Amino acid sequence: MATDLSRRLVAEALGTAMLVTAVIGSGIMADRLTDDVALSLLGNTIPTGAMLVVLITILGPISGAHFNPAVTLVFALRREIEASTGLAYVFAQILGGLAGTFLAHAMFELPILQVSETVRTGSGQWIAELVAAFGLVFTILAGLRFRSDAIPWLVGLYITGAYWFTASTSFANPAVAIARAFSNTFAGIRPLDVPAFIVAELLGALLAMALAGWLLSESKPVPEMKAAE
Amino acid sequence: MATDLSRRLVAEALGTAMLVTAVIGSGIMADRLTDDVALSLLGNTIPTGAMLVVLITILGPISGAHFNPAVTLVFALRREIEASTGLAYVFAQILGGLAGTFLAHAMFELPILQVSETVRTGSGQWIAELVAAFGLVFTILAGLRFRSDAIPWLVGLYITGAYWFTASTSFANPAVAIARAFSNTFAGIRPLDVPAFIVAELLGALLAMALAGWLLSESKPVPEMKAAE
Amino acid sequence: MATDLSRRLVAEALGTAMLVTAVIGSGIMADRLTDDVALSLLGNTIPTGAMLVVLITILGPISGAHFNPAVTLVFALRREIEASTGLAYVFAQILGGLAGTFLAHAMFELPILQVSETVRTGSGQWIAELVAAFGLVFTILAGLRFRSDAIPWLVGLYITGAYWFTASTSFANPAVAIARAFSNTFAGIRPLDVPAFIVAELLGALLAMALAGWLLSESKPVPEMKAAE
Amino acid sequence: MATDLSRRLVAEALGTAMLVTAVIGSGIMADRLTDDVALSLLGNTIPTGAMLVVLITILGPISGAHFNPAVTLVFALRREIEASTGLAYVFAQILGGLAGTFLAHAMFELPILQVSETVRTGSGQWIAELVAAFGLVFTILAGLRFRSDAIPWLVGLYITGAYWFTASTSFANPAVAIARAFSNTFAGIRPLDVPAFIVAELLGALLAMALAGWLLSESKPVPEMKAAE
Repeated sequence: MATDLSRRLVAEALGTAMLVTAVIGSGIMADRLTDDVALSLLGNTIPTGAMLVVLITILGPISGAHFNPAVTLVFALRREIEASTGLAYVFAQILGGLAGTFLAHAMFELPILQVSETVRTGSGQWIAELVAAFGLVFTILAGLRFRSDAIPWLVGLYITGAYWFTASTSFANPAVAIARAFSNTFAGIRPLDVPAFIVAELLGALLAMALAGWLLSESKPVPEMKAAE
Repeated sequence: MATDLSRRLVAEALGTAMLVTAVIGSGIMADRLTDDVALSLLGNTIPTGAMLVVLITILGPISGAHFNPAVTLVFALRREIEASTGLAYVFAQILGGLAGTFLAHAMFELPILQVSETVRTGSGQWIAELVAAFGLVFTILAGLRFRSDAIPWLVGLYITGAYWFTASTSFANPAVAIARAFSNTFAGIRPLDVPAFIVAELLGALLAMALAGWLLSESKPVPEMKAAE
Repeated sequence: MATDLSRRLVAEALGTAMLVTAVIGSGIMADRLTDDVALSLLGNTIPTGAMLVVLITILGPISGAHFNPAVTLVFALRREIEASTGLAYVFAQILGGLAGTFLAHAMFELPILQVSETVRTGSGQWIAELVAAFGLVFTILAGLRFRSDAIPWLVGLYITGAYWFTASTSFANPAVAIARAFSNTFAGIRPLDVPAFIVAELLGALLAMALAGWLLSESKPVPEMKAAE
Repeated sequence: MATDLSRRLVAEALGTAMLVTAVIGSGIMADRLTDDVALSLLGNTIPTGAMLVVLITILGPISGAHFNPAVTLVFALRREIEASTGLAYVFAQILGGLAGTFLAHAMFELPILQVSETVRTGSGQWIAELVAAFGLVFTILAGLRFRSDAIPWLVGLYITGAYWFTASTSFANPAVAIARAFSNTFAGIRPLDVPAFIVAELLGALLAMALAGWLLSESKPVPEMKAAE
């Protein structure tokens, strides 16, 4: 039904926009207030994790709260979303992400249109993005399997962790990577470096899907913290 | 019933007072202990978010835990609270907020009566307050629709995020803005700048109400993280 | 039954010991690692809040997880614990707290027996302790009334906030105040200053009990976030 | 059944790998970004706690989410896991931990094979590891007894606290200690110092098991926050 699809697409665009505004806005704020880069990253991490919990909780019931083309791709391959709808989701995510970038710039009275000059490249960064997306998608699929009510918290906590333990600070999301390419601030990434990030993210997502297909399916869960042959 | 209304008004005043004491008190504490402004904001953010979770959980069952005239306005327009009761709520919130300011000053042995000299003005700040209040009210309305038990956490996490991603550090609350005008400390705002903040906050709240009226009503929620035509 | 009482007393002593070890140990650790006092307080706050959630969850079912003579006093006055049992609780809490201080010193290879020289006195500090204990006890009583399963989180979050918004960093606990008098480290308090803290804490607790007696009893809860005459 | 055992072993290896990647990776990231050691420890603490909540939630239903030979030992002694399976778990944990170290190094473009030179020895450190493992195992056993659904949060919060209040920053895990010996970064430990850590951790775990055997068994839980003879 058209009406329902339009609601879903608005939810995807709104959620991705708010997520990107949180990522870029908090990066600008933190960067302005301190010279300590670890503190800037902390001031970037906490709002991102907090907003993921909020956005997935409040928009999940409408659109599934993907906010991420890598996630949509996995659900399309698992036939849990139709290909055409998935494509529309991805467009909504990319447009929403760009709107989020512009909104952050408007709030901080910066030029709306910018292009990032921050170099993020090299094998370490690509491995990091593969790991980041692998962990994110595996967390979502395992969460759906065992504790779907906990998914907002699981995703928020996972990204909170991954901002620090991956060398790339865990973009893990092609739509967010594109949006961040248009902000020459703390959270930016040079457009030239985006394609390799997206490839690594999609590979990580597919790897998680493959592992989940074996590790999570058919096995009967054993009582938590117990084990028996 | 008069008795019940008096309890509700005391809950609104007490909750707003404790919230403002948390905001202003932690701002004073953090500002005294460090020269790093990002660290001060972090020391201001964490107590504010934590106390919102606590106060909404323990006072929500009595008064609904609005603590915020913009929220009360939206509930009045949605006819979920009578106009006269709503007006009494707003008075209780403003008086409670002022009491919270005075209490914070008393604890830190500062002059009880102060007027802030902190300039907070300009289009960026106003957009930020509109965004902050939009997100807050939309979070509450969507929370009520899908996960009312999670609202204390959703609001606490949303404000934790918005302190950093909005350029204004997210006042998002006319009663709190008025209370903060009477504290010439970290969390203060010049009285001259308060009216524009309030206008932006009310606009953001109404915008959220309008969007929620379309996005949240009548649509049948789909299973979380799934999608189907 | 004697056996059950002994288990409860061990739970109170163990819980208070672990709480004090967390407070004093994290204070020593943070103080050693940084010169920024706000960062030290943050490194003191996070472990304290985290351990309160853990300890109340795992020991609450055994003893009620008071860990605090002010809380035990309120439950005794409400006749929810017998006076003689309450007195035994208080002894267990004080002894446990002292053991926690000694354990923290042993881990950090400091002299086991110390006396604090940190001055904490004056009207601001006393108001702060009254506010801190008032908020703590009211949070517990309202939590018991409306969301008893959430009490571990409510107490952990409340103290996380109160460390920053009260001028005294929120001792709010006579047994912990006594234990902290025997540590000349970040979390210490001069023994001379302890009695006034205890008086303020007990007054705050009684005030919360009085308010809760009116605000929480007999009123019929209204649906959360709604209001109706 | 072989298939089920292989899934469980993969879950133990994967979980321990991700945990170690989080610990070592975030230590490297934090250490690079700041000169303030307290801030580095905070940037190490938050991802570790967050990932523990995630990993225990998503892998607990498959393997029990031990990720820790001290935990597996206790479950084997309690006959909740067979000795042979327990031994296989321990191998999977150690191998997974080493893989986690190598992955962190690869992401940060450091030599894959390293040996730590960080001295961590002395009575204070050993007491700290005993306390850390005691608290961890007691938290798990009490969680299983009273609130098994809360165990991911309890463990995540406990380690978040223990990173700060134990003098050793709470390794509390023989497999993780071995993995950290092969990283000459912020989270490293000299191989020479590992055996004493492991002994202290196992002693702490056994002590917790003994206390839990008395304190948690047979007693009838009293209503939370209440007490009655």
